[in-house]
Amino acid sequence: MLIRNVSVLIVPEQGECRVDEAQDIHVQDDRIVAITPTADASDAGEPPTEVVDGSGLLAVPGLVNSHTHSPMVMMRGAAEDLNIEDWFNRRIWPMEVNLTPERVRVGARLACAEMLLAGVTTFVDHYFHADQIAAAAIESGIRADLAPTFFSSAGQDAVDAAFETTGDLSARHPRITASLGPHATYTVTDEDLRRTADLARSDGRRIHLHAAETDDQTQASLEKHGVTPIQVLERTGVLEAGALVAHGCGIREEDLPILERYADRTTVASCPKVYLKLAMSEVTPIKRLRSAGVNVGIGTDGAAVHNTLDVWEAIRMVALTQKQREHDAEWMTLSDTLRLATRGSAAAAGLENQIGVLEPGRQADIALVDLSAPHHQPVHDPRAALVYSMRASDVVTVLVAGQIVVRDRQLTTMDLAEVLADAKSLAHTLVDLSQGGAVQHYAP
Amino acid sequence: MLIRNVSVLIVPEQGECRVDEAQDIHVQDDRIVAITPTADASDAGEPPTEVVDGSGLLAVPGLVNSHTHSPMVMMRGAAEDLNIEDWFNRRIWPMEVNLTPERVRVGARLACAEMLLAGVTTFVDHYFHADQIAAAAIESGIRADLAPTFFSSAGQDAVDAAFETTGDLSARHPRITASLGPHATYTVTDEDLRRTADLARSDGRRIHLHAAETDDQTQASLEKHGVTPIQVLERTGVLEAGALVAHGCGIREEDLPILERYADRTTVASCPKVYLKLAMSEVTPIKRLRSAGVNVGIGTDGAAVHNTLDVWEAIRMVALTQKQREHDAEWMTLSDTLRLATRGSAAAAGLENQIGVLEPGRQADIALVDLSAPHHQPVHDPRAALVYSMRASDVVTVLVAGQIVVRDRQLTTMDLAEVLADAKSLAHTLVDLSQGGAVQHYAP
Repeated sequence: MLIRNVSVLIVPEQGECRVDEAQDIHVQDDRIVAITPTADASDAGEPPTEVVDGSGLLAVPGLVNSHTHSPMVMMRGAAEDLNIEDWFNRRIWPMEVNLTPERVRVGARLACAEMLLAGVTTFVDHYFHADQIAAAAIESGIRADLAPTFFSSAGQDAVDAAFETTGDLSARHPRITASLGPHATYTVTDEDLRRTADLARSDGRRIHLHAAETDDQTQASLEKHGVTPIQVLERTGVLEAGALVAHGCGIREEDLPILERYADRTTVASCPKVYLKLAMSEVTPIKRLRSAGVNVGIGTDGAAVHNTLDVWEAIRMVALTQKQREHDAEWMTLSDTLRLATRGSAAAAGLENQIGVLEPGRQADIALVDLSAPHHQPVHDPRAALVYSMRASDVVTVLVAGQIVVRDRQLTTMDLAEVLADAKSLAHTLVDLSQGGAVQHYAP
Repeated sequence: MLIRNVSVLIVPEQGECRVDEAQDIHVQDDRIVAITPTADASDAGEPPTEVVDGSGLLAVPGLVNSHTHSPMVMMRGAAEDLNIEDWFNRRIWPMEVNLTPERVRVGARLACAEMLLAGVTTFVDHYFHADQIAAAAIESGIRADLAPTFFSSAGQDAVDAAFETTGDLSARHPRITASLGPHATYTVTDEDLRRTADLARSDGRRIHLHAAETDDQTQASLEKHGVTPIQVLERTGVLEAGALVAHGCGIREEDLPILERYADRTTVASCPKVYLKLAMSEVTPIKRLRSAGVNVGIGTDGAAVHNTLDVWEAIRMVALTQKQREHDAEWMTLSDTLRLATRGSAAAAGLENQIGVLEPGRQADIALVDLSAPHHQPVHDPRAALVYSMRASDVVTVLVAGQIVVRDRQLTTMDLAEVLADAKSLAHTLVDLSQGGAVQHYAP
């Protein structure tokens, strides 16, 4: 396949991002095999089996949602204007009593549709019934790293079942990887975290979990246990095994040397729209984490709090909230923001050598975006357009592993009307609180 | 005209917003004359000359951009990752040496196109060559309040010319109103502010200006003049005349009783994306202003810093940043946010009795939005969809003063391709710094 005459976003490991105009992207099977100037094209050689006209479009690495709970789209808008305690204890965890494999699958299908249409080609998920999420991801054509999630309060059988699902998922499809998914330092015992870390080391897997989400959690951990959540991750072996830490807004100064020791295998995922919406006073300390060599990715979290799975929105919020946090408008530049969103998030997915950059040898996960609409024009700097004026609706065509999954803004892999109808018909079942009970209680 | 079978967003003066389903909106000339249940429709009476099918759509009051500098779309993306001083002194004010009537008009046409397509039906503008902006607004079909802007440093002739333009614009078109536009308390002398206030009182006009944009400005004013910017507005008569104060992030506790005295004629416009992008530590103190009875509107500011004129984005940023500022996730609820965005912004435009609410007697300024896309589904709460998952691209049809200006996502009033081509061809002229000089120097 050939994407002809397209502009290409180039994201170097350091320094300024740039856009190379008038390029041809050559794709063979699931990979990019060459990127060459359109002007150099000759008629020699095999003609490509399919040509996508990239004229007027910009090719960017398919976006990665570094931390989400995809089936929670089914609760979108059902838990608004609540503080964290009430959000968990009065809405989300009581609602999750209603989870069934079917409802999770229907939600995951909707989530995959929303993400693909927005140019998100990989998501890093953390949820229950992960086998259903895998099925939806495979059907939709998206790439995913899935962490079957568990609370210690659900008992050892539930923990074992989650471990088993992680094992089952790993070999299921080339686009699916699996991680271990303890819910959080405050909902999983140290003993279960140790078991998780042991299994991770022996099976060569990563651990995806919530930790130090807020400074209040860190303070509570210090008061109850005398250690920070990051110290818990160290002493249980989670950091040694390799962790994707969601949020980390409560990471303290004394945690940084610890994280630095495991920097080669640690990522923190930042989802700042959520931190503002929940009225937190902190956001992820990205500048300090990067100084400690720790990778950072960008995510949306679940749509029950983020309301969308729009990674463009998450990228913008990272740039804006980081400038505010550091009182430095020259920090989190366009190039640094785009680097986090591509290389950083690819590493968050454990796929730093597979995706995140458009270059030969990488997976052909590509979003073609159209910057010709009035809200982008005139384009003095396409990088600024991507960070500050982009709408998900500007995504035209999307490839994952060389397959066209969105063409001219239409999903090619699933019947969208059916996906939407299924979600609509089951939506009320998720938010029904008549059964009582809750899957967990928030009291970190 | 009749908009048939549409859901309607109802925004009461207090309490919860709601959505009434299956309504008919009856429009005669420029006004809404009735809103009746579709089920009550009878075949009696005159058939409407035009019927818009509202099935599956939600009618919301056309959005108002409470503070912008519309022609600055021409500098979109040309001043990134800069602190406030450098943004003004190294980019914007040197670039504005290049302003000409033609360039302003081309920029304003593009801005009007961007806003209308996003459901923005009124903008409150503050810029130079305002007669050109009026021409673009009239052509596009949008409604505008325009404040011809001046610096005292430009000399008395320039001040007088701005005053004269305000007078000339007022009677030009039913959709155009005019205000007086001193740039800011730190760029206009007290004497000129007094002259402005005198003229405003005698002509019955409002004054639209920047004041207390940051706390640094307030501190500088106290050190240089012994008074806060708000105290300057009081002693020069600006507050007595009636003011739209842009930003107000540097409003201090001692300013609130002053503002409270003029609360019946004062609005503060909040544009929070800009405050984060410029790494400010403050946002507009909306909670305190509302407690003092001061009206608050929502705006984008110019696209040279906001990058878009997307008021949906601005609305969302107000909700998010206000929750964060007050450390209270239960504050700036969905209903309060939508009330600011509609009634609050309508009052910011000086049109609180004309627009901002869908009810009989009001101007027919209406946006029909489609919440059927995956990023909204399932819709547990349409108010949450409007605040937290809306994209400007969800706007389908837009009316201003009863005229359809956007139909099926297409502008009906201007040739968009021509608008875009004109902007592209002149874009380089705006960012050319080879002439040297600057229209002003930032040193508050």
